[in-house]
Amino acid sequence: MGTSAARNADVLVAGAGVIGLAVAWRAAQRGLSVTVADPAAGSGATNAAAGMLAPVTELAYGETPLLALNVSSARRYPSFVAELEQDSAMTVGYRTCGTLQVAWDGADLAALRDLHAFQLSLGLAAELVTGRELHRLEPGLAVGLPGGVVAAGDHQVDNRLLYAALRAAAAREGVAFAASRVTDLVVTGDRVTGARLDTGEVLGAGAVVLAAGAWSMQVGGLPPDLLPTIRPVKGQTLRLRTTGEPLLRHVLRGSVRGSPVYLVPRADGGIVVGASSEAVGFDLRPRAGAVYELLRDAQALLPAIGEAEIDEISTGLRPATPDNAPLIGRTSLPGLLLATGHYRNGLLLAPVTADTIADLLAGGADQPELAAAAPTRFAATAAAAVAAR
Amino acid sequence: MGTSAARNADVLVAGAGVIGLAVAWRAAQRGLSVTVADPAAGSGATNAAAGMLAPVTELAYGETPLLALNVSSARRYPSFVAELEQDSAMTVGYRTCGTLQVAWDGADLAALRDLHAFQLSLGLAAELVTGRELHRLEPGLAVGLPGGVVAAGDHQVDNRLLYAALRAAAAREGVAFAASRVTDLVVTGDRVTGARLDTGEVLGAGAVVLAAGAWSMQVGGLPPDLLPTIRPVKGQTLRLRTTGEPLLRHVLRGSVRGSPVYLVPRADGGIVVGASSEAVGFDLRPRAGAVYELLRDAQALLPAIGEAEIDEISTGLRPATPDNAPLIGRTSLPGLLLATGHYRNGLLLAPVTADTIADLLAGGADQPELAAAAPTRFAATAAAAVAAR
Repeated sequence: MGTSAARNADVLVAGAGVIGLAVAWRAAQRGLSVTVADPAAGSGATNAAAGMLAPVTELAYGETPLLALNVSSARRYPSFVAELEQDSAMTVGYRTCGTLQVAWDGADLAALRDLHAFQLSLGLAAELVTGRELHRLEPGLAVGLPGGVVAAGDHQVDNRLLYAALRAAAAREGVAFAASRVTDLVVTGDRVTGARLDTGEVLGAGAVVLAAGAWSMQVGGLPPDLLPTIRPVKGQTLRLRTTGEPLLRHVLRGSVRGSPVYLVPRADGGIVVGASSEAVGFDLRPRAGAVYELLRDAQALLPAIGEAEIDEISTGLRPATPDNAPLIGRTSLPGLLLATGHYRNGLLLAPVTADTIADLLAGGADQPELAAAAPTRFAATAAAAVAAR
Repeated sequence: MGTSAARNADVLVAGAGVIGLAVAWRAAQRGLSVTVADPAAGSGATNAAAGMLAPVTELAYGETPLLALNVSSARRYPSFVAELEQDSAMTVGYRTCGTLQVAWDGADLAALRDLHAFQLSLGLAAELVTGRELHRLEPGLAVGLPGGVVAAGDHQVDNRLLYAALRAAAAREGVAFAASRVTDLVVTGDRVTGARLDTGEVLGAGAVVLAAGAWSMQVGGLPPDLLPTIRPVKGQTLRLRTTGEPLLRHVLRGSVRGSPVYLVPRADGGIVVGASSEAVGFDLRPRAGAVYELLRDAQALLPAIGEAEIDEISTGLRPATPDNAPLIGRTSLPGLLLATGHYRNGLLLAPVTADTIADLLAGGADQPELAAAAPTRFAATAAAAVAAR
């Protein structure tokens, strides 16, 4: 396995979460030499995530531009996983289990009916079901839930297994790893030619891909207004362990008295419960109140979860952009590409992000389907804001 | 520090929780050679405890015989701590902070009034206060609590610091430690002359003190009916961390809609929240439902606790006897003494247990005040039960 950094590479990726590693793996497959730099690889949002692959049940009013991208990436998952499992000789826990979005009460069901109509209007596969049908699908559900939506195509992957497989596959393709932070871009003339690490070392690179998630803005040397504000949105997840018969077969989502919660059942009896959502800066401490709310709402939907063992409380920082869509592609600064700002959808969007960035690194043209994620889409606003000062 | 087991000793203590270590320390101070055997020293109830020293607010109807013992041990605490801190050169976090027992609602306050009258009838120091007075004492309390009882003499010790200090003080007095489990008593003629460890080694001893808490019944070679049933009662505690101004100055106890909870504020901003109570055998897994209930009830009394950081979830097994009083003293088998069955009061009762057992080991007579804890008190019942078979 390559574990030391090459002094010069075709591509330097700043950030070794699932996005950075997927980009590195795909770029290396195309024959590019790649170095990935991260002081704490895989320990960020990648580690705390639950791994829902849910373009349908993640759909939010006002975020339709993001939908095509989410759907495109979800469609890539089967082949992405097959190829990755082959390359890494590891499994990634991809389960085509479907997702139940359940209503908590009548008002919630009414809102879910509207959302369902919206889903259908966009051509998505989603089925409205009664409370009785919900119970047939998941006998452990709380009694009295009035109904819900079955999104048979919303699946899951085990985020931590996926990370480990990406790491192994990337190494196998010759990717080098530096356990250091990228502190500054190095710009020579009008283009990025490398980056400086916190060790002081400078790595030369034909292109730099910024994939540092919530920490992306902390890289120095970025021209002002090149990057929109990326705000860290703290999320907490719980990892529970159950034994015996599975408590749950589908991914389960709901909003209990307005408080969203999801439960993602792993094949080994583990259940990931998520997720809190708090804009509190770079604070990674697990908050008692968030744990309380997750347990409260998870038990409200699936009472037997109270008997599960608590294995772990995880926190991570989702990188959120002003319009909640990611930043994927070339920037106005030659040699600098972005693969960040994936907010709630980093696991889902890893395949499309990696394919797209690898294409661009190999000299490909911009893809129209990526317009919603174009890093340059905020430039006009930013310029106007500067002009108005 | 003595860390290897002596082959022969005056005293072998089976169990290195606070009870076993306090006994070992006190016995060694009297010039006896002592070995303590435990495969996982300090990891049981000692580790999960919160360290409340609360004879008044622990008082339960029907457990009055235990009260004198609890009060006696609480009175010994200041000198016990002073001597231990001196011997160990460590601090143990003894805080004379007092305890507030708060009522949740009117019905709860009525019950608390009755309990308060019972406390006064037994000569205990306890003061009934209004909701307004509670808020003056603890401004962070939830609004609307109707009143409570202040037990100014119910204090706390940091169970983990106390454990560490006992270990250091015992080692300094020459106590030897074996990281092994006592599997069987060795009986020669009519008396105990040592014990066998799980390594196969036999340690000779003039006396054996059984201080293995919930595991006490698992020692082989005990005559039938010598020991009453000791049932493991699982308890969970949470360790939270707060920063800035302390959220709480007193130990806080309450019963929220019938569910008991306590919060023990450490000097460093830590708060221990406890405790669940479940009779589920030797199951030490942290249960999601118990964590949920502790957080729910703790927040109901002290809302700001929701902002605290969760540091740790701990579980332990309280050793409970049929009458909930401990087993302290000589048995009908010469050479075997018991120091176990302390249920909810192991930390509180460590001083009186250690003093008493050390006295007996040094040839002292049985103390009348220990009658409620006499290991032989169940013998008549047991004999009758055998006769009735």
